[in-house]
Amino acid sequence: MTEQKLSDTSAAPGVQTIQASGPSGLHGSAGPVAPGPGAVAALWPLRLHHARLDPDGLLGRWQRRNAEETLPHCVDNLHRAGNIGNLRAAAGESDEAFAGMWFADSDVHKTLEAAAWELGTSSGDGALRSFVEDTTALLARAQQADGYLNSYFTVAAPDERWRKPDWSHELYCAGHLFQAAVAAARTGVSPGLVAVAQRFADLLVERFGPGGVEEVCGHPEIETALAELYRLTGRRPYLDLARRFLDLRGRGLLGHGRFGPAYYQDHVPVREAREVTGHSVRQLYLLAGMVDVAVETGDLALLDAAERLWADAFHRRTYVTGAHGSRHREEAYGDPYELPPDRAYGETCAAIASFQWNWRLLLATGRARYADEMERVLYNAFAAAVSSDGRHFFYSNPLQVRTGHASSGEEATASRLPWYSCACCPPNIARLMASLHGYLATADDEGVQIHLYASGSVNAEVAGAAARVDLRTGYPWHGRIELTVTSETRTPWTLALRVPSWCDAYKVLIDGGPVMAPAKDGYVRLTRAWAPGTTVVLDLEMPVRQVTAHPRVDAVRGCVALARGPLVYCLEQADLPPGTVLEDVRLDPAAEMTAAHREDLPDIPVVITAGGLVAHAGDSLYTAGARRERTGTPLTLTAVPYFLWGNRSEGPMRVWIPVAATE
Amino acid sequence: MTEQKLSDTSAAPGVQTIQASGPSGLHGSAGPVAPGPGAVAALWPLRLHHARLDPDGLLGRWQRRNAEETLPHCVDNLHRAGNIGNLRAAAGESDEAFAGMWFADSDVHKTLEAAAWELGTSSGDGALRSFVEDTTALLARAQQADGYLNSYFTVAAPDERWRKPDWSHELYCAGHLFQAAVAAARTGVSPGLVAVAQRFADLLVERFGPGGVEEVCGHPEIETALAELYRLTGRRPYLDLARRFLDLRGRGLLGHGRFGPAYYQDHVPVREAREVTGHSVRQLYLLAGMVDVAVETGDLALLDAAERLWADAFHRRTYVTGAHGSRHREEAYGDPYELPPDRAYGETCAAIASFQWNWRLLLATGRARYADEMERVLYNAFAAAVSSDGRHFFYSNPLQVRTGHASSGEEATASRLPWYSCACCPPNIARLMASLHGYLATADDEGVQIHLYASGSVNAEVAGAAARVDLRTGYPWHGRIELTVTSETRTPWTLALRVPSWCDAYKVLIDGGPVMAPAKDGYVRLTRAWAPGTTVVLDLEMPVRQVTAHPRVDAVRGCVALARGPLVYCLEQADLPPGTVLEDVRLDPAAEMTAAHREDLPDIPVVITAGGLVAHAGDSLYTAGARRERTGTPLTLTAVPYFLWGNRSEGPMRVWIPVAATE
Repeated sequence: MTEQKLSDTSAAPGVQTIQASGPSGLHGSAGPVAPGPGAVAALWPLRLHHARLDPDGLLGRWQRRNAEETLPHCVDNLHRAGNIGNLRAAAGESDEAFAGMWFADSDVHKTLEAAAWELGTSSGDGALRSFVEDTTALLARAQQADGYLNSYFTVAAPDERWRKPDWSHELYCAGHLFQAAVAAARTGVSPGLVAVAQRFADLLVERFGPGGVEEVCGHPEIETALAELYRLTGRRPYLDLARRFLDLRGRGLLGHGRFGPAYYQDHVPVREAREVTGHSVRQLYLLAGMVDVAVETGDLALLDAAERLWADAFHRRTYVTGAHGSRHREEAYGDPYELPPDRAYGETCAAIASFQWNWRLLLATGRARYADEMERVLYNAFAAAVSSDGRHFFYSNPLQVRTGHASSGEEATASRLPWYSCACCPPNIARLMASLHGYLATADDEGVQIHLYASGSVNAEVAGAAARVDLRTGYPWHGRIELTVTSETRTPWTLALRVPSWCDAYKVLIDGGPVMAPAKDGYVRLTRAWAPGTTVVLDLEMPVRQVTAHPRVDAVRGCVALARGPLVYCLEQADLPPGTVLEDVRLDPAAEMTAAHREDLPDIPVVITAGGLVAHAGDSLYTAGARRERTGTPLTLTAVPYFLWGNRSEGPMRVWIPVAATE
Repeated sequence: MTEQKLSDTSAAPGVQTIQASGPSGLHGSAGPVAPGPGAVAALWPLRLHHARLDPDGLLGRWQRRNAEETLPHCVDNLHRAGNIGNLRAAAGESDEAFAGMWFADSDVHKTLEAAAWELGTSSGDGALRSFVEDTTALLARAQQADGYLNSYFTVAAPDERWRKPDWSHELYCAGHLFQAAVAAARTGVSPGLVAVAQRFADLLVERFGPGGVEEVCGHPEIETALAELYRLTGRRPYLDLARRFLDLRGRGLLGHGRFGPAYYQDHVPVREAREVTGHSVRQLYLLAGMVDVAVETGDLALLDAAERLWADAFHRRTYVTGAHGSRHREEAYGDPYELPPDRAYGETCAAIASFQWNWRLLLATGRARYADEMERVLYNAFAAAVSSDGRHFFYSNPLQVRTGHASSGEEATASRLPWYSCACCPPNIARLMASLHGYLATADDEGVQIHLYASGSVNAEVAGAAARVDLRTGYPWHGRIELTVTSETRTPWTLALRVPSWCDAYKVLIDGGPVMAPAKDGYVRLTRAWAPGTTVVLDLEMPVRQVTAHPRVDAVRGCVALARGPLVYCLEQADLPPGTVLEDVRLDPAAEMTAAHREDLPDIPVVITAGGLVAHAGDSLYTAGARRERTGTPLTLTAVPYFLWGNRSEGPMRVWIPVAATE
């Protein structure tokens, strides 16, 4: 871990006043997560507008779809579901009854944050800009004289304010407000929102700060948000309060609750925790806050704890899609290796939180494993949560839907819904999509590090000089990444390119010539005084892989998941002959597998075709002695990317495919 | 299906007045479920005191433990948890606040029912008799002038009476009251309770009967209870109301609720349902009511529907232990073949309800498969719910507890608890245990049918003459059942002995000599004019079986469950060498298995010993390509009966054992 400072102190015009009072650094134009100049960090993010996604690449298309479809859809639904009306009522401008969940404000804040990232990148459209301006003004009017801002506890339950920290989500909502304000300030889109946020944050400091009440929020989020608000404003009490909330956790302040204190990570002090527990989104937001506070305060014990919990989460409780949360009940982590594909909870917000947490760990430590997990969750659990049209969403992301599946609560649907009564996921998707380019690369005084591959460009600064790289790639469909250095630097710098952990073989070419470039710690590092126009090709081999799980994962014994590059594939009913029951399909592990575009599936760039068969096993549920399947009809299996499932029909799906007995 | 009448009309002294107004038959001394003389039924239960369990057999020991430990424990806890206090408050004799669940009365009613069955069989103890008398009197005082009786809606929420049928459990509580009253009357233990029940039932008829409001209860139970109250009293409006509640179900009267109408089986008319759905206890109680109404009204479409749902439940959604309910969330059935052992819900009440439903189907149709499932659930899922000391209980009955298991809600504990805030299970256990002898055998004009084997005696009447059989057996530990006919009859009658579906080979001896006795439809039938002292031996072979599940049950692919006779076995951490992780243990399917008593496990009559090994698979959660386990240390596996798990320690447990790869 190295401590480094960025020398650039310029700021976007809209946040000059904040910048003046805050720490110097990249805050004026940073993306999500901007370690302060005194932070203990290994890598440093780029200014948000210093990375760009081309709209012809997959990530760029996602981002465009987010701007054109998902964001307007979220804004519409905030109006329709009453979230905006709630704030009007809180402002005394309406007498409508409170609508929706008691934490409905957070959906507004997340949409605001998403809009800020989007408007800070693109020219945006007028409607989105109006939404930001109108909502910022509305929030200012809904804010109480003392700085308190929460429509539920203003309109519907004023006597309950601050009364139920285990349940109320008041600090959770505040946290999302602060993150929106940070985004609006860093992008210069709506600097006025910071004043609203700071008034509320100052109230929190007064109430919960040193000498104040000892309480924490049942749903973590405030911790990372306060750290970011500190980074933006330089107001140290915000960081101190974030740390205080972490320090107070694990003392039982929240009580036992319905599900016990581990449900909201209050069963043990955060520095002593050895396992991720309880509600997965709460756990992951808490972990993000732990890393933020650790890097800003130099509290390495806190960072150690976060890395220790990472090992527990990613070695024992993560789905092959990167999804977290094995249980619908309590939306929770399961026991070690309890990873049932059909009962997977895998909340979309947990995928987003995992991505955000891994990014923080990557910045703090520079370890490639965190970028590997960002990639895994990005292309699988996260991407699957949005429909191809950008207007339908999964809340829960199972890895298997059985024949005859009957969804019960709306969270367990086998098809994406346009909105949810608990609508935390759609605006969360929007804010990650809108800021996606902020996660491609980092820079330091030695060079540029590329973590995620997409067509676009990176415009970093290395030791005060521009270091610009254009990327062209068909990733994740193809493993060839072409990079062109477009800037001139007098001094050598290092272009570090991540070699994903799934990749066993790759080639590197510079200006067309092969070079020896062994990856070290997950990165190929190429150091030279780059002349403009120099091309680098990283060619990652992408064979189809048959992935197996640790045998302690009982739920997928005897199965493989097909994967290629970062993408996990799945079987869907839509690709089976009529009358074939998906649960009877077996993979022939010895048969040839191919990965190619197929004309019968024009919308899917690369389809995996494999050999299989349909087994028949009779009717009895239990029998004594070995049951010999009749291995009937041979069948050509068609596997499609998991993230695209459920876009053609609602039929059964499975990631883990039983392997035919080889006898 | 044959329609038959019992000729005996004598009644226990205490219910003479009821008997006089009711249908003739065995109601005066019947056990749970007594089809009326006009019922469409294939088999007829015995009078309760006409069957007896010897205290040296396993079932007899369970029944004695129930009387000596479980029942007094339940009575104590009803006082301690406030259930009795709630009724005192409803009677205006206390101003204590309401305590516990809003359906807390049902725990009182179930304990009363259990006490009635117990006191009707044994001499009982004075404390239990006082509990019945005091509680009967208290219920009469707590009853409102109009007949309404529910302490929650009298004390805590009077304005809510009859307002929330989806949630209130008012009719559910009424149903358990009626069942208690029926038991108290049939056994003559507390005939006065029937008057209380009838006053309430008459109110229900007035409110919900023809021309009344069209509503059903979110938690079925009233249907079977009204049918039984009809059987006891002969009051046809009770049966008609039960049928009306069935007919009104599936019209969406309950609304969508939190989990959708399938949660409480209100999504489709009961006659049209093709799958068991939702909350498993609700589904099973509803099915019991369907069979009761079907046999009393001759509504064969209703019986057909119940049998169709049985096929769905038992061919696609039943654990090898007989447990029902795959999901903690919603306490619900899962999708077809969704039977995860670790996440099994398997509520104890569902096991009891399954037993009760199968008994009703057995009486209605005479089909052995229903007795087979009674046996499976009795000796496994149900029996496991009680600790060896009779004072600790499981609410949920998983088939696997992992290393590092962290239970969250109290329902998912890995150890039995003395009581629960939702204490539905312990008194439910008590009422089944207390009436267990009522389920051993049936009789008709042709003979006696023995369905469950236990040391004890059966004293039936066949065509008006006594038909008495004594049973001696070490069942379920040993398969030899010795029966002695102790009565003399002039005319031949048939002794039908069930050959369990798990049994592949058996012998029959009469007076020591082997006879050819092929089982037909699951029963060996021996017809003769039995001379007193004639002995019959049914010797069921009981090898250890390696049971496999249908391959669509993904969760246990590559595993076997060890079973012997009706007992499913499991591995427990307590029997592993220190440091061995249960999840790494494999069964060697080719190694010899033995079943015997072992001196190192004196409390377990028969232990299975098998060959196995400990596998090692490294740390990585996912890897490409086949993962070859290093098959390390050989290990002798000790498997113990599932129903005894968790009595020695709280450690990990598993029923389904992965089979070592045979290469």
